[in-house]
Amino acid sequence: MAQHLHKSVPNIAALLRAGKVSATALAEEAIDRHGRHGAQLGAYKHWDERKALVQARAADAAFKSGRTLAPLHGIPSSVKDLFGLKGYPIFAGTPKRLPAAWEADGPVVAALKRQLATITGKTHTVEFAFGGIGSNKHWGTPRNPWGGKEHRVSGGSSSGAGVSLGEGSALVALGSDTGGSVRIPASVTGNVGLKITIGRWSCDGIVPLAPSFDTPGVLARTVADTAYAFAALDPAGLDADAFLDEIARTELSSLTFGICDSFMWENLGPGVGEGAKRALDEAVRKGARLKKIDVPEFAETYALHLKGSVLSAEFLQFLDDELPAWKDSMDAVIRTRVQDGGSIPATEYIRRQQFIARKHRSVSARLAEVDALVMPTVPITPPTVQEIATLDGYIQHNRQMFRHTCPVNNLALCALTVPVARDKAGMPVGLQLVMRAGSEERLLAVGYALERALGTAEKRLGKPPLNAIPKART
Amino acid sequence: MAQHLHKSVPNIAALLRAGKVSATALAEEAIDRHGRHGAQLGAYKHWDERKALVQARAADAAFKSGRTLAPLHGIPSSVKDLFGLKGYPIFAGTPKRLPAAWEADGPVVAALKRQLATITGKTHTVEFAFGGIGSNKHWGTPRNPWGGKEHRVSGGSSSGAGVSLGEGSALVALGSDTGGSVRIPASVTGNVGLKITIGRWSCDGIVPLAPSFDTPGVLARTVADTAYAFAALDPAGLDADAFLDEIARTELSSLTFGICDSFMWENLGPGVGEGAKRALDEAVRKGARLKKIDVPEFAETYALHLKGSVLSAEFLQFLDDELPAWKDSMDAVIRTRVQDGGSIPATEYIRRQQFIARKHRSVSARLAEVDALVMPTVPITPPTVQEIATLDGYIQHNRQMFRHTCPVNNLALCALTVPVARDKAGMPVGLQLVMRAGSEERLLAVGYALERALGTAEKRLGKPPLNAIPKART
Repeated sequence: MAQHLHKSVPNIAALLRAGKVSATALAEEAIDRHGRHGAQLGAYKHWDERKALVQARAADAAFKSGRTLAPLHGIPSSVKDLFGLKGYPIFAGTPKRLPAAWEADGPVVAALKRQLATITGKTHTVEFAFGGIGSNKHWGTPRNPWGGKEHRVSGGSSSGAGVSLGEGSALVALGSDTGGSVRIPASVTGNVGLKITIGRWSCDGIVPLAPSFDTPGVLARTVADTAYAFAALDPAGLDADAFLDEIARTELSSLTFGICDSFMWENLGPGVGEGAKRALDEAVRKGARLKKIDVPEFAETYALHLKGSVLSAEFLQFLDDELPAWKDSMDAVIRTRVQDGGSIPATEYIRRQQFIARKHRSVSARLAEVDALVMPTVPITPPTVQEIATLDGYIQHNRQMFRHTCPVNNLALCALTVPVARDKAGMPVGLQLVMRAGSEERLLAVGYALERALGTAEKRLGKPPLNAIPKART
Repeated sequence: MAQHLHKSVPNIAALLRAGKVSATALAEEAIDRHGRHGAQLGAYKHWDERKALVQARAADAAFKSGRTLAPLHGIPSSVKDLFGLKGYPIFAGTPKRLPAAWEADGPVVAALKRQLATITGKTHTVEFAFGGIGSNKHWGTPRNPWGGKEHRVSGGSSSGAGVSLGEGSALVALGSDTGGSVRIPASVTGNVGLKITIGRWSCDGIVPLAPSFDTPGVLARTVADTAYAFAALDPAGLDADAFLDEIARTELSSLTFGICDSFMWENLGPGVGEGAKRALDEAVRKGARLKKIDVPEFAETYALHLKGSVLSAEFLQFLDDELPAWKDSMDAVIRTRVQDGGSIPATEYIRRQQFIARKHRSVSARLAEVDALVMPTVPITPPTVQEIATLDGYIQHNRQMFRHTCPVNNLALCALTVPVARDKAGMPVGLQLVMRAGSEERLLAVGYALERALGTAEKRLGKPPLNAIPKART
């Protein structure tokens, strides 16, 4: 079987358009990869290779008729099982299938389908996306491809998304992000994840967690792939190839990264901060500048998040009104956290909303001083399933997993995680780039400059990704 | 003393620019009018003719130096005492002066000052703007100029704004509108009032009531004056004279008005519906079309408003956090309403926000079928102070006063009230035109077409307005 899935998405798209590879061949390659690693890794809640092949053949028929529909035409893609996807059951990480109304396509899924992408299946999620670790008591916890013989978590809540990229069955993975649920799994699986500014992409057709923070997002192996998929899916209707050319003009030597020593660079897991700093040192050697900047809003909104922010109240209202029967079967840990955090008076909810609105304004002013604020995306090594087996272990690790990402949601910013190193345990370290609301184009340009300077895309794509994944010794 | 204040604002502005009248002469005329009627009508909480004259002289100095700053240069204007206005005390209808921070100018007041308008003073408001009648136990209830020997209310919460136009001391009156507080006083005092879409004009520098609904607004005698002031103050930076020319091109014969028989045209005070219908009949004779349209969202959001909507919770949070010491001195009726309505759980608050967001979407789709939805702005004759002396009388009348206006705030629409008739008691009847969010320009064009067809501006401006006001028989 010819190997193509180790190439970049824009390269594969060009091969497809040139008739040098077929969507069906790509789908078969994805199926082969999944066949070899799927059972071990557990990325998918619902894998459907029959449907994937039907879609791929339809994509090829469209190619043959001379219709190149869109950038993601024929590209194997996975969808988090929090998105409705017509014809596929939706569980949203719960033990019971959701009512059929939740299976309807929303705008992001519709955009993927309109482009005749090949959808491989629906990836695992934390129950109702409420958690940053990636564990799920009902359906199991996907295995991080980088964990070797250890079963390390793959990050939540889009727990299967990064793993689907890791096993190589998907090149684009749709996720959603309320407190880090795109960036955390992308970071700990060595992928790129884009958290889009709230409101830019519609959340219709996605099971909500907290509408004040929820946003769809994209995971892919490289910044270039992510930028390509972003352009393809964004309602602005960007030309994906032209967008890549455009962002390639941003040079690292023109950039200033903001470093906030306190909070974001302290209490990090072994090798996490060191790995991220080495990458920044390399960026400085290639011309970038670092600037110390004080950003107290991160610690302030993290503290609020630990109290439940406005998230728990919004989630509790959703459960009470839309899926009350799903409360009884919920993981008791999640149910207790939601009930406790969500039972606040309206005045307290409003107070918190005003607090985060105020912090949004002040942090936005600060961020004008740098091109991007940078920090490790996830401050710790992703834990093993044993480390989160106790309630205390779960809670402590969960709080650490979203420590650097949830402030971005609370502050209504946008962010990108780029893999830059490995920690002491050999697990991937992501660098989070944070920018002001609505800066996605600029964010991807800055991330792309970093990726090119560090040569991280070559490392990720240089050989078939399955070979890059340390085989779990069974 | 030469009389000019009975002319339209654009006409006066042209005279000022041509040097045919001075801002000082206008200020003196305003002072004269206030001197004759101010004590009787009670429009102002804080009247400051010394400052008005200083401002007018500065405006004249600017004119003489060849600098015509802006459309409202030299135009006598009043400001509701809910807006901060530097150098003037602010009470917001409460018995105690607010802290000095609340006296700072916000963007709307700053725009008025930047244009060198002559500010006559700060007009009365209901305590914290929480009420539609216009009564105030601490500072008295302004007298509606149309009430004759009866002391009828002037509508709330911008209770002094319409009266300042009525006595003729101001030609433009800044108000704010959370549930009808610009449109109700405009309607019952025979003036025009524009409720601006939430978010279009900043509420900074205005004491908040409920940020989900609060918006500044403008009252003036005619649609033309209102449109002129809107263009002058809008951040879009419209050319006020060109805007009037632009909206004059809309003809009544091109317009379809939507009539919703249920709710908006039932249970009306004596002569209110008849007066409004006569005006619409006249509009139809001049070429407009009427179309029956079902708009259940008005009754639905009114029912929610009676429960406190999200307003009471937001107001309670504001009081608790910002001005707790002001709660003790509050009118007991208002305090009880706020405490009861505001003490809801966060989940209920979120549920209500989602409800009104859903209703906003459905009503917006319906409103696409007509140019404007029309109904009496206030469904009843403005009561006498005797009729609201009892708690029950107050509550019943208050609920009726905002019945047709508060749904517009809950549904996040924009609206204009135009005086079209008198009711059985001889009190003005306003017709409310309602449009989708952000339609201010079109709304003013439609209102202007109606005003020209009905000849209402001539009736309002044809003679000095003081003569048009039935003198209160003392």
